[in-house]
Amino acid sequence: MKSLIKRSFLNADFLLETDVARKLYHGYAAKMPILDYHCHLVPREIAEDIHFRNMTELWLGADHYKWRIMRSNGVEEKYITGDAPDEEKFHAFAAALPKCIGNPMYHWCHLELQQYFGIRETLSEWNWKEIYERCNELLEKPEMSAKGLIRKSGVTLVCTTDDPIDDLHYHESIAKDESFNVQVLPAWRPDLALSPEKDGYVTYIKRLSGVSGVEITDFATLKQALRSRLDYFGERGCLVSDHGLDFAEFRPVSDGEMDALVEKGLTGQMLTVEQRRQYVTGMMLFLGAEYKKRNWVMQLHYGAKRENNELVFKSAGANAGIDCINPRGFAAEVADFLNALNREGNLPKTILYSLNPTDNALIGTMIGCFQGDGVRGKIQQGAAWWFNDHKYGMEEHMKSLASLGILGNFIGMLTDSRSFISYPRHEYFRRIMCNFIGNLVENGEYPEDYNLLGEIVQDISYNNAVRYFGFQL
Amino acid sequence: MKSLIKRSFLNADFLLETDVARKLYHGYAAKMPILDYHCHLVPREIAEDIHFRNMTELWLGADHYKWRIMRSNGVEEKYITGDAPDEEKFHAFAAALPKCIGNPMYHWCHLELQQYFGIRETLSEWNWKEIYERCNELLEKPEMSAKGLIRKSGVTLVCTTDDPIDDLHYHESIAKDESFNVQVLPAWRPDLALSPEKDGYVTYIKRLSGVSGVEITDFATLKQALRSRLDYFGERGCLVSDHGLDFAEFRPVSDGEMDALVEKGLTGQMLTVEQRRQYVTGMMLFLGAEYKKRNWVMQLHYGAKRENNELVFKSAGANAGIDCINPRGFAAEVADFLNALNREGNLPKTILYSLNPTDNALIGTMIGCFQGDGVRGKIQQGAAWWFNDHKYGMEEHMKSLASLGILGNFIGMLTDSRSFISYPRHEYFRRIMCNFIGNLVENGEYPEDYNLLGEIVQDISYNNAVRYFGFQL
Amino acid sequence: MKSLIKRSFLNADFLLETDVARKLYHGYAAKMPILDYHCHLVPREIAEDIHFRNMTELWLGADHYKWRIMRSNGVEEKYITGDAPDEEKFHAFAAALPKCIGNPMYHWCHLELQQYFGIRETLSEWNWKEIYERCNELLEKPEMSAKGLIRKSGVTLVCTTDDPIDDLHYHESIAKDESFNVQVLPAWRPDLALSPEKDGYVTYIKRLSGVSGVEITDFATLKQALRSRLDYFGERGCLVSDHGLDFAEFRPVSDGEMDALVEKGLTGQMLTVEQRRQYVTGMMLFLGAEYKKRNWVMQLHYGAKRENNELVFKSAGANAGIDCINPRGFAAEVADFLNALNREGNLPKTILYSLNPTDNALIGTMIGCFQGDGVRGKIQQGAAWWFNDHKYGMEEHMKSLASLGILGNFIGMLTDSRSFISYPRHEYFRRIMCNFIGNLVENGEYPEDYNLLGEIVQDISYNNAVRYFGFQL
Repeated sequence: MKSLIKRSFLNADFLLETDVARKLYHGYAAKMPILDYHCHLVPREIAEDIHFRNMTELWLGADHYKWRIMRSNGVEEKYITGDAPDEEKFHAFAAALPKCIGNPMYHWCHLELQQYFGIRETLSEWNWKEIYERCNELLEKPEMSAKGLIRKSGVTLVCTTDDPIDDLHYHESIAKDESFNVQVLPAWRPDLALSPEKDGYVTYIKRLSGVSGVEITDFATLKQALRSRLDYFGERGCLVSDHGLDFAEFRPVSDGEMDALVEKGLTGQMLTVEQRRQYVTGMMLFLGAEYKKRNWVMQLHYGAKRENNELVFKSAGANAGIDCINPRGFAAEVADFLNALNREGNLPKTILYSLNPTDNALIGTMIGCFQGDGVRGKIQQGAAWWFNDHKYGMEEHMKSLASLGILGNFIGMLTDSRSFISYPRHEYFRRIMCNFIGNLVENGEYPEDYNLLGEIVQDISYNNAVRYFGFQL
Repeated sequence: MKSLIKRSFLNADFLLETDVARKLYHGYAAKMPILDYHCHLVPREIAEDIHFRNMTELWLGADHYKWRIMRSNGVEEKYITGDAPDEEKFHAFAAALPKCIGNPMYHWCHLELQQYFGIRETLSEWNWKEIYERCNELLEKPEMSAKGLIRKSGVTLVCTTDDPIDDLHYHESIAKDESFNVQVLPAWRPDLALSPEKDGYVTYIKRLSGVSGVEITDFATLKQALRSRLDYFGERGCLVSDHGLDFAEFRPVSDGEMDALVEKGLTGQMLTVEQRRQYVTGMMLFLGAEYKKRNWVMQLHYGAKRENNELVFKSAGANAGIDCINPRGFAAEVADFLNALNREGNLPKTILYSLNPTDNALIGTMIGCFQGDGVRGKIQQGAAWWFNDHKYGMEEHMKSLASLGILGNFIGMLTDSRSFISYPRHEYFRRIMCNFIGNLVENGEYPEDYNLLGEIVQDISYNNAVRYFGFQL
Repeated sequence: MKSLIKRSFLNADFLLETDVARKLYHGYAAKMPILDYHCHLVPREIAEDIHFRNMTELWLGADHYKWRIMRSNGVEEKYITGDAPDEEKFHAFAAALPKCIGNPMYHWCHLELQQYFGIRETLSEWNWKEIYERCNELLEKPEMSAKGLIRKSGVTLVCTTDDPIDDLHYHESIAKDESFNVQVLPAWRPDLALSPEKDGYVTYIKRLSGVSGVEITDFATLKQALRSRLDYFGERGCLVSDHGLDFAEFRPVSDGEMDALVEKGLTGQMLTVEQRRQYVTGMMLFLGAEYKKRNWVMQLHYGAKRENNELVFKSAGANAGIDCINPRGFAAEVADFLNALNREGNLPKTILYSLNPTDNALIGTMIGCFQGDGVRGKIQQGAAWWFNDHKYGMEEHMKSLASLGILGNFIGMLTDSRSFISYPRHEYFRRIMCNFIGNLVENGEYPEDYNLLGEIVQDISYNNAVRYFGFQL
């Protein structure tokens, strides 16, 4: 086996190019706990404190980032989402990894191997089998369970992503476990209620009627049912909503017209594209106002064009790594939506995410129009997300945010992940953030004052998010 | 009070990372005077040589950049554009500033404190009051008047922004003051004449009739009236026009159709969106040709979506910091407009500005299609403007311009400002420009030849603009 | 004459900022031959092994990049594409060059002077005449012929750009010359067959009927004729197709509708914009499937807005340097086109190029949706092209590609050039690529392992392209 470890890669000063960056990371950022306000962990898996069969299940079971890497290396679908043996899947992934120079996957994987498995070699064709076996052996240990992995990661609070009709009983069960001192809170994601064009819409609304006890026949009753579920989520600690929206046009209509749209949707008729936009606009104006009343945060995720590859979609289903950026996803009309809420005193704390890095400046200038209201950074430009979740994407995000707004008020990183060992992405972000700030200081763009700098770094790492969401920690 | 001053921040070598950059800045750029070919200074304030009551009036009276910073820090409108005491407003701004790491406001403020007030500390929560009082005391001195501040700044010429119906008597009065050797010239900004959709259009055209002595009833008489005012401005030294345009589509129509559009507008009827585009196209084709005849420069500012926040607009009016980028602002059809002028020999020297940094490459490739005509850099990509007026924006602008055209022919910086102490933005630009060029040389991308480099740096700092506009200096 | 040569500019370590970069370039990249899979060399000129009259003919005869530089410097058209004496044209270009700091033209020209003419001074106003004469003298030497220049450049294979109706007899003649061991293969570029809106369409289709022996009356016979020519090209070694497409919308129609569109085009009627999109979609679906059958590569070039300046177009014709980026050129609908091919098993190896650097992330995420199929990097994001063919453009391209996909599978550089001495652009690319990778290693983002790094560098320089296209070398 070849030794691939070199001097600087992944050592203590990984990604920290300057003295200031090193002081900021080791002296301030590294000490902070993790608040993961947006992820896709499965509450059942935490509640049941599951174990993983092997590294393929842990790493390759649901990670579309890794699937894309494998496909890009020419690997056939059988070894990705198909029925090839787990060991061969791991082998195929390991063989692709060394070509991924500059890709965050290269860093994430090696941070995870190092921190959860104590492995410091770089994974490759030459050592994949040995690493696979060492990891599998460790995965059998009791502390390598779902809760064990979270515990090990220095996390104080996690928000999962939940549907309004979910009864949240796994959250209740997790909360009762006194041996597990990490808060696992629900987050409200009502995407299906905003998708009358989808097959499951009618059934979904029926189930929503069922759990809320409100018979839904028009916009008024739909709102009533959702309000009941908002209360239910709120009682269980929810403070965050999340919306994955295809487009951003603003098309307000009257309540009467909304009634007609709801009725049309409920009879299974297809709304026109224009009607769908009106429906989404009406629903978002309603929900935004509800969030404001409850002091919840509204997260808006724009700009994905999903399920582009029908062959893979048929064999592997949704979230299979076949999405791309939709450059029409984020539009200037988002400002009209925010204004319509704000005009009525209904604008909640809001996080605007866009997948397209070219929208950084648009978003940075837009959020500046709606700030104020006694909340520091009330409207946030969401962290570099999904396809931007890499060193370059984070740097571009921070350059834009710093140039156009107040970097010191940024609420920082989220994992957005389905994995129990993706918390090193917070470390990754913090190193990049400290390096970014360190460079500003080294270039003489900000004084080398560690009282100010340390506060900024700890705020972005953790404190801003605690304050912003209002979590009790 | 804490001392916040450190070694490199804001010292003589601020932003100059390399030896070459330092040689270029101190040896060449710093020596050049300032030509501010586009700003929003109020001619009356210069003519009357006003004094400022205090730092709040000077800094926070009309600066929407600072207002945005305050709102982003959660400050309530009362302390921004409302009726809170001046001292509290200053305090609220000072408290926000230290969080603005990476924001040009942090640099502009401290350059201004240093150069106009001799203050070298960084402003913050801990020293705001002392700094406020020291500045206010200095503002009472005779040399801290409007003219005094301009004089102190090494400026040879300023172009204000003026309406065609303005009688320019303040400019005449300034010109007569022999103790003030800075040229203050008018610039022609006929936005209202291009806005038939606005309430004031009919009234405005009546006033234009009045000052020009031409009764405006159709396109021909509208053109006649404008020509008369162009002559009037020209006689008073005007060499520059400026247009703030919402969109860039090119929709030429016949003079007969233009007559109909003008008549419709003059009877107070609302033009359709398509008609408005036709009207603007017809007017711009007329005006472009007039500029060409007069050897004026045509400045085109595209891409702002304005007045997004109705609440703030109602309480604080226009230019209140509630605008954002409009990604549809700049379009490829600008090339069709330039071609239509050029085909007839009517294309004047033109500066294309866009707010959206993602249009840098589009503009850089477009200007290359219309160069020539015996003028070095006849079509310019305007300096990084408004939301791009920061280190990152300037660097991206120069990278794109250098890669796609001739950086050495760039006419450089403008303040675009309403403030009498914003001239350090020229210094800021020059440091960043020298640093950019210095890095090219240090990386071996250009020979270390100070005859060539010094000329390029002095051309971009000052000489190119003098030559390009044709000012008598 | 002034000496303009300084220490680091254009020396052996040109553009190589770090030790790792220098090791990678000198130890790995520089040793690799050149495979130029896309260029616009004229087969006749190679077959006839032409000589150039002087440097103006060689440099300024057909190079629209240089023409743009001259126009940007205010040079009149007479000295660019007009009838001024060759010497004066060269002088005008030389006078503009020193202002081009940061432009790739500055580097390309000096690399060419150095490598083909042994000239190490930088070209300028002061030495242009001497350099002109030295170069002209050298151009008379026998080894400075077309073949001689290619031979000197370390090229193993060149793909020209050819029309389906071309008989390729120059390629046959070149192949027969045993003294010339560079493969010169045709590439298939059927743009005219996809342009029913152009005047020459009807004539063109008649000529296609003639060379294929298939009377074209509808879509079926058009396909039959094209298949016959695809076979003809394939028999002469063609493995690459190329399409210059104005827009990317996907509008599939039935074969019956395609018949109607072809018939309409053949009677000289103008297709509507929508019909033109349908026609192009139908043709591309057909051709894509043919490429897949033949294991050819499909190159798609999107996003140019051409012939913007009518005056220059009238005097100088096409490819005169009057094109710009069309921001609507590349759209998310390209994914629908790729999916439609892929669904039927018809998706060939594909290279997506876009002129607009802001589409980097869109393309990077899109290609990831269609990878796999046993081919490493089956769908490629084409190298930084035309207006992006500079250091900054290449770096942005590689940052995006590395962050979103597998940089190690990138097939690397092409010249896209009409010139026999443009091969230093491959060196330019390799230096920038080694510098990019070197920086990643120096920053600790990848281990300093020269087995892995050397392979990546040699793959991107040459080996990936050989494997990907399947050339016999």
